[in-house]
Amino acid sequence: MAIKYELIKTCKQSGARLGRLHTPHGIIETPIFMPVGTQATVKAMTPEELKEMEAQIILSNTYHLYLRPGHELVQKAGGLHSFMNWDRPILTDSGGFQVFSLGDLRKITEEGVTFQSHLDGSRHFLSPERVMAIENALGADIIMAFDECAPYPSEHDYVKRSLERTTRWAERCKNAHQNTEKQALFGIVQGGMYEDLRRQSAAELVALDFPGYAIGGLSVGEPKPMMYEVLDYTVPLLPADKPRYLMGVGSPDALIEGALRGIDMFDCVLPTRTARNGTAMTSKGKVVIKHAKYTEDFSPLDPECDCYTCRNYTKAYLRHLYKANEILSSRLMSYHNLHFLINLMKQVRKAITEDRLLDFRASFFEKYYGETPTDL
Amino acid sequence: MAIKYELIKTCKQSGARLGRLHTPHGIIETPIFMPVGTQATVKAMTPEELKEMEAQIILSNTYHLYLRPGHELVQKAGGLHSFMNWDRPILTDSGGFQVFSLGDLRKITEEGVTFQSHLDGSRHFLSPERVMAIENALGADIIMAFDECAPYPSEHDYVKRSLERTTRWAERCKNAHQNTEKQALFGIVQGGMYEDLRRQSAAELVALDFPGYAIGGLSVGEPKPMMYEVLDYTVPLLPADKPRYLMGVGSPDALIEGALRGIDMFDCVLPTRTARNGTAMTSKGKVVIKHAKYTEDFSPLDPECDCYTCRNYTKAYLRHLYKANEILSSRLMSYHNLHFLINLMKQVRKAITEDRLLDFRASFFEKYYGETPTDL
Ligand SMILES: [Zn+2]
Ligand SMILES: [Zn+2]
Repeated sequence: MAIKYELIKTCKQSGARLGRLHTPHGIIETPIFMPVGTQATVKAMTPEELKEMEAQIILSNTYHLYLRPGHELVQKAGGLHSFMNWDRPILTDSGGFQVFSLGDLRKITEEGVTFQSHLDGSRHFLSPERVMAIENALGADIIMAFDECAPYPSEHDYVKRSLERTTRWAERCKNAHQNTEKQALFGIVQGGMYEDLRRQSAAELVALDFPGYAIGGLSVGEPKPMMYEVLDYTVPLLPADKPRYLMGVGSPDALIEGALRGIDMFDCVLPTRTARNGTAMTSKGKVVIKHAKYTEDFSPLDPECDCYTCRNYTKAYLRHLYKANEILSSRLMSYHNLHFLINLMKQVRKAITEDRLLDFRASFFEKYYGETPTDL
Repeated sequence: MAIKYELIKTCKQSGARLGRLHTPHGIIETPIFMPVGTQATVKAMTPEELKEMEAQIILSNTYHLYLRPGHELVQKAGGLHSFMNWDRPILTDSGGFQVFSLGDLRKITEEGVTFQSHLDGSRHFLSPERVMAIENALGADIIMAFDECAPYPSEHDYVKRSLERTTRWAERCKNAHQNTEKQALFGIVQGGMYEDLRRQSAAELVALDFPGYAIGGLSVGEPKPMMYEVLDYTVPLLPADKPRYLMGVGSPDALIEGALRGIDMFDCVLPTRTARNGTAMTSKGKVVIKHAKYTEDFSPLDPECDCYTCRNYTKAYLRHLYKANEILSSRLMSYHNLHFLINLMKQVRKAITEDRLLDFRASFFEKYYGETPTDL
């Protein structure tokens, strides 16, 4: 077995769980936020900086690496860890989300998906077997089964057919996976916003006995209360002795709400993408650095943060860098935002340890969102 | 006096000189290459990284900082050192090179230059007095007088009138400079490619007794042998007890040739600009990282380099980052190129100490340029 989930304790106040995930490249404390390194680099960051901010695992994207530089090249480099110089755990997604998002550029059959590259229009075919070969070549500690993430909203009938194909593909992935000792394959529960379909998907996948489970098809445009409702009935369907990963979620409120509902792992491009667009997440909520009010603000981005950016630079300087379109702007803002989410999950773990995650949520939300909750 | 130049020794083989320049923010070993931080940041680098690669002084651009974020803001931040979090020496240019390069967007009178901002078309006026006020507000250790850098080629008559105005402006700068105890004002020798005019310019400026002298108007499109010829007759006109700065020069051959002729300081955007364009300077010459031959090259960018980039990453990975347009590409390539030039000057200083700079030049050139010298 490539991984092993160890349940440390359950928060008496909230029922949230604290755990340890043992992987071939080290132990991950959960619940955890995973920075995204789409193209074999967490944008604007070095591995040393990620370690400095205590990132324990990063995610990378199979679709992107398959197209460029190609999984064969990564394999020749000794795998993704060696290629990008990151010796801690890595998770690769399956590319399903990306190819299904290509719209007119892809065609789906039972066998797999034919699509055109967004880079150069070249034609490609991905099937469960092909995806396993690619993810085996990349060599991540955790790899995801090839699934369809149904768009929101979708008809019950479409979602049902989609999740049933996802189950058949999950089984094909399991059969094709060549490196079970070093790489753990996760199944992905789909089913859209339909409780009966989530139940069906979870039951089918649990029967296949994967080392871990993801919940996919959420954070795709539905209202947040709807996402939490789906989590409310889906998480309890998953085995307690396996890790649970909520895909594509990274806003502070959703991280806390997810942890409350028993999620162990999260990933999202949000902290780095918004950072490059000049928006920071801080202990007192969103800071849009280009605003004129920061012109002569010589205080740190977040006075309660002890990250490299906040220890060394002022808002006035960060605003200048952003307006001057300097690379250092992306670096410093990305550093802070990633640090913020990683640190948030550290606080969540501490609150679980001390049986006070509901209290933590209340005080965090009041400070972060105030009276007007936002999407960030 | 803000600075003091200390001549340590002269190379017996070449006549090149080794020195120490004492400044309010520390001692600089010369000859030295100064990384350029145009907009109050050396592009893609942090101050810590610059220190790690042993940068001893950086340059920043008055024209750019005056327009954005404005020298008053920098002054309110406590000066440029504090604004950008760099506690070692800084040199600011005068903005002359930039405003004279604006072509149709500027009008020159004896009083000064009226010009339109390249950012927003807004109208501005810079005079020697105004430039001194700006550079005093920025607070660099070394500041440059407001000069005209005549284009190449230019008629003798034009260059003569230009250099004479540069002298008059240098005197006005000297009179307007308000902070002589903390900031050293350098005069800039002009005169184009005409020996009589260089002699005239040098004589007039030396009579004004500046704490240091720059040689401007070179590396503006003239053939390199012509630049070296101008240095041959201009450098000896400058006082031996003052530092000498060759502006805008940063190719490895020109750094060595300049040091051989008694130059102490150099600056150029070349290492960072070419890095962002995917070109590295290495011990064996130029490496254009996008070339297909590096696709599966798992060796470092420069096997003889011990910089962060070369210790941790392969050419194959750097090529991938460049082709994927990742910020980390600019970071890693910039780091290496700056380290390369800083390390080159360290080797030059060592060769001077050991009286073998001509030998060093011969072996470096053979390795770097081989049989086909290039512009890099
Ligand atoms: Zn911070
Ligand atoms: Zn290097």
